[in-house]
Amino acid sequence: MKRLSILGSTGSVGTQALEIVRENKNMFKVEALAANSSIDLLEAQVREFRPVITAVGDKKKYGELKKRVNGLTHITAGLEGVVEAATAEGSDTVISAIVGIAGLIPTYNAIKSGKNVALANKETLVTAGRIITEEVKKNKVEMLPVDSEHSAIFQSLGGSKHGEVSKLILTASGGPFRSKSPEELEKVTVQDALKHPNWSMGRKITVDSATLMNKGLEVIEARWLFDIMPDKIEVCIHPQSIVHSAVEFVDGSVIAQLGLPDMKLPIQYALTYPERLPMSGKKLSLTSIGSLTFHEPDMVKFKCLGLAFRALSMGDSACVVLNGANEEAVRLFLDGKIKFLDIGKLIEKTLDKHEVINNMNIDNVVALDQWSRETLYNLYQVGCMK
Amino acid sequence: MKRLSILGSTGSVGTQALEIVRENKNMFKVEALAANSSIDLLEAQVREFRPVITAVGDKKKYGELKKRVNGLTHITAGLEGVVEAATAEGSDTVISAIVGIAGLIPTYNAIKSGKNVALANKETLVTAGRIITEEVKKNKVEMLPVDSEHSAIFQSLGGSKHGEVSKLILTASGGPFRSKSPEELEKVTVQDALKHPNWSMGRKITVDSATLMNKGLEVIEARWLFDIMPDKIEVCIHPQSIVHSAVEFVDGSVIAQLGLPDMKLPIQYALTYPERLPMSGKKLSLTSIGSLTFHEPDMVKFKCLGLAFRALSMGDSACVVLNGANEEAVRLFLDGKIKFLDIGKLIEKTLDKHEVINNMNIDNVVALDQWSRETLYNLYQVGCMK
Repeated sequence: MKRLSILGSTGSVGTQALEIVRENKNMFKVEALAANSSIDLLEAQVREFRPVITAVGDKKKYGELKKRVNGLTHITAGLEGVVEAATAEGSDTVISAIVGIAGLIPTYNAIKSGKNVALANKETLVTAGRIITEEVKKNKVEMLPVDSEHSAIFQSLGGSKHGEVSKLILTASGGPFRSKSPEELEKVTVQDALKHPNWSMGRKITVDSATLMNKGLEVIEARWLFDIMPDKIEVCIHPQSIVHSAVEFVDGSVIAQLGLPDMKLPIQYALTYPERLPMSGKKLSLTSIGSLTFHEPDMVKFKCLGLAFRALSMGDSACVVLNGANEEAVRLFLDGKIKFLDIGKLIEKTLDKHEVINNMNIDNVVALDQWSRETLYNLYQVGCMK
Repeated sequence: MKRLSILGSTGSVGTQALEIVRENKNMFKVEALAANSSIDLLEAQVREFRPVITAVGDKKKYGELKKRVNGLTHITAGLEGVVEAATAEGSDTVISAIVGIAGLIPTYNAIKSGKNVALANKETLVTAGRIITEEVKKNKVEMLPVDSEHSAIFQSLGGSKHGEVSKLILTASGGPFRSKSPEELEKVTVQDALKHPNWSMGRKITVDSATLMNKGLEVIEARWLFDIMPDKIEVCIHPQSIVHSAVEFVDGSVIAQLGLPDMKLPIQYALTYPERLPMSGKKLSLTSIGSLTFHEPDMVKFKCLGLAFRALSMGDSACVVLNGANEEAVRLFLDGKIKFLDIGKLIEKTLDKHEVINNMNIDNVVALDQWSRETLYNLYQVGCMK
């Protein structure tokens, strides 16, 4: 039986993880839950799954949650509270599904306390890939991907040896603006950006899919998760989102993982690996889909993808800046403060201002993340995207 | 170092296997070669690879071969000679690449003498799947597929457990007549049938690809190779021959193996498994190919594929009849004696005449194979295809 700490339990990945727990009660026990602020749902989860620890990220919600579920669970709050959930003594596996940089510290601490990690929070590896993968080795824990693309690569790798991989092929739907001209991109709205063709996800990641920054962050994540150099990672636009990603081996053989776009499969696989459990629901039929298409990404039109490769080539610290600047830029876009194409422009200018730092520790990452948000915000305020 | 007996060394698979040996001399040593009658090429192979034993299937060629390479190798002839090559004391791995039912007895004997088998001869499993797989278990040898589709399935299975597989998806190019109407199929010539769109192979297998009997035989082969029931094997027409086959797992995940159509990869993988060796040559580029299409096979137009499923449901012995009748029918077609659509008609009538035999041994298989050829030939002579 696996004993789980689920960080981000009220989000899209968290709720699907709890569905899997519900369907396989003999395999999983929930030890800890952590959510930021959705306490209605969190309350219901506490009543159903009876975790030993429940953390609420937003300290202002602590009192209200306490009132509602007092006696059922030990309630903690704030970052320290989430870390307490991440390192709960009774848990052996942490599902890291907090959105954004907020997931870094809890995940880092989970690894240091010897938990295996099912990783949905890509910022953990984007901002601290070297630090995190070293801790994973040092603490002899497993870190398994939950992201559908990385799960696809993980599944495609099978038991192959590291030196046998010649290339990772990360597929991307291309987002809602794949076929738009640069002129049309000038005018797209928040509404437009939130309509993802294939996947239903949170707002921030949906915008990232529209800019292709999501794919850029995934490239950085893959670089660390699979210990592979960026020049061996290729992005391929595949509008149908059926081939979730693939691996090319030194003998030319390509192994790919396919399926309908559904996050539940990679979440479940990360929890049941190396076993596979039956899953209900519609199955992929290649003959019904009929045609799968592939083309190269346009890195001029989608500047953000190119910026991710640029950050990788600059150094680890540039990836922190890329990520922090992007979170801030997407926030400004969602708030209606900047235009869609300004996202890439402002991130680029923030990267231009960054001087690479070597040998970062986790505190440097947190500080640099802060610097990048402030820098981007200042650039916005002085009207630098015009 | 692997010590190889290569049966069918002058054929398409055999010569490519020897190319791999030539490129990796430190990994492979040729212990025995066997060919049917192409003694010019066989002589050159003997001079280059210096096998301990060289067998020529056609006894009439024995004298000539002996004259040419006397002293360089021990020469044997006929079926017994090929069996001697298959069971050569010094070899540990047999590449079974003789075309047709002629490959059965040597492969059977190789397994009984404890050799691992890289299997390109599909008739071995089509006609004697139950007997062969039992011998493989009993003798604790490995049998690895060389056929590109079965190699794709084997690669896609990775280290998964048998019970985790929900479906095998065998892809088929659809052959040169994929888009022809039933009326057009009435008139196709031998010349037309020998033009395969993607693969360059021998004449018999190329005709089998045009009738889709090749895929039918592969379904039967897969049934035994992967110990899976026929209702879990699906054929999918994929004209580009890039997805070589795929596996669906119980959780809905589909793993596929892709590559350019090139037999050298599956041959090499069968020889180097579980390792992968670098291979030169052009690599697959999904973005250059652009589009992969899939549709269901038309089992009315391509009767032979349906006949293979029918034979499987009848019983083991019906698969022997299917295969023997097909070899005879294709011979008649290649000799210009019958029309393309007569192939399926004559096989169907032969199957109609067959009474299923249970608990066959290898002698039953050989006798039944003979019966099916004679029966089909008699049906042809009395004009049964009209």
